[in-house]
Amino acid sequence: MVTYVSPATGRPVRAVLFDVFGTVVDWRSGITAAVRSFAAGHGLDLDPAAFADSWRGRYQPAMRQVRSGARPYVSLDVLHRENLAEVLRGLGLDPGAFDPAELDRLTRAWHFLPPWPDSVPGIAAIRQGYIVGPLSNGNTSLLLDMAKAAGLPWDLILGSDVSRAYKPDPEAYLRPVALLGLEPGEVMLAAAHEADLAASRQAGLATAFIARPLEHGPGAAEAGAVTADWDLAGGSITEIARRL
Amino acid sequence: MVTYVSPATGRPVRAVLFDVFGTVVDWRSGITAAVRSFAAGHGLDLDPAAFADSWRGRYQPAMRQVRSGARPYVSLDVLHRENLAEVLRGLGLDPGAFDPAELDRLTRAWHFLPPWPDSVPGIAAIRQGYIVGPLSNGNTSLLLDMAKAAGLPWDLILGSDVSRAYKPDPEAYLRPVALLGLEPGEVMLAAAHEADLAASRQAGLATAFIARPLEHGPGAAEAGAVTADWDLAGGSITEIARRL
Repeated sequence: MVTYVSPATGRPVRAVLFDVFGTVVDWRSGITAAVRSFAAGHGLDLDPAAFADSWRGRYQPAMRQVRSGARPYVSLDVLHRENLAEVLRGLGLDPGAFDPAELDRLTRAWHFLPPWPDSVPGIAAIRQGYIVGPLSNGNTSLLLDMAKAAGLPWDLILGSDVSRAYKPDPEAYLRPVALLGLEPGEVMLAAAHEADLAASRQAGLATAFIARPLEHGPGAAEAGAVTADWDLAGGSITEIARRL
Repeated sequence: MVTYVSPATGRPVRAVLFDVFGTVVDWRSGITAAVRSFAAGHGLDLDPAAFADSWRGRYQPAMRQVRSGARPYVSLDVLHRENLAEVLRGLGLDPGAFDPAELDRLTRAWHFLPPWPDSVPGIAAIRQGYIVGPLSNGNTSLLLDMAKAAGLPWDLILGSDVSRAYKPDPEAYLRPVALLGLEPGEVMLAAAHEADLAASRQAGLATAFIARPLEHGPGAAEAGAVTADWDLAGGSITEIARRL
């Protein structure tokens, strides 16, 4: 594997860090399955996929509170747990009517999401020539549980609770870069979301876009054309591995 | 592998974290070899093993400055580089007479130390049932380079630059524990140095002692009997793996 030089940064890439929810793992399938099982156990009549979408929909607003400084950093586990209560309330269900330990267990479904089929072989291939790790808003223990369950072959795991910042805050990109002992231009972010890539490019990183048209389910609206000239683009992590 | 319950903490152990220099890797052989090569390149007449011992001897005093608060946190890479200059001066050599890039390169020998023969298989065996990682005064990039070169199968790497604290400061133990989402009693420190184990026990962790009689070379004084009743004790990481 030859070291890839980013056209945007002009530097050889030493590390490829990955967005996780949607890019490496299929959060919608995983959460839908966990919600289906929870609903069945309580005899609840609800649409598990719509529940998953609603839960995920509260993700950005919740982090915005931390990013804006309105609230000190709390981990994504805490935000997911709070957002679950909101989703239940939105369905006219009282979160207080459930055993808290059971809601904690359902929240932990975010730790055990299934990888896309190309994720494990793609990351393993890139690992032959580069440092690989997640660069996610997930906390370290979430990313660790996920890696062990799914067999994601990361070299290291630095969660958002290490930087105590949520993407697209620049610190969320720059603190992992500093801990790697690298310059921003020597680190590539691989992600399925262009806003994430745009913020990482702004922070000086190299970029790889990975199309995940199924992230929001088979019936979701098309994401539209890729808008920017990312260093690399492909339909899978294995495809990015071949281009590096 | 059955989950081990620590007699000292009364808790099932979920993660085994390892001291690195001396416990997982043979720093003295690695540094001696690097110094021998450096000395040969410059026609210097010096004892490479004594140089390695002197370099390592400045490790604790340098960290003490940070621990005491006399100096803000700087990484072990920085301390190793400063200490190298001191060792050269102690031999009557002017560090300024060498190309700084070459002294940087020699300092990076601390990133590429050889593991003891039982380290890789022992850690791999423990990884089957537990989270495994380093708990070292080394910085993240040092531990990452070492892991990739030596094939150490860590689940995650959190260097001292994550906690910004040096052992035996309690924060050096408690910050990684918190990032793992565990209680101190669910984490075991495995180390060859009883002072490290004593501080980790003080912080509430479970403990495993690994005897490394060759750490200071074949001619070094015997370390003496093990002084405390650590949860586990053995002559290798593979032996600890069998006892877990």
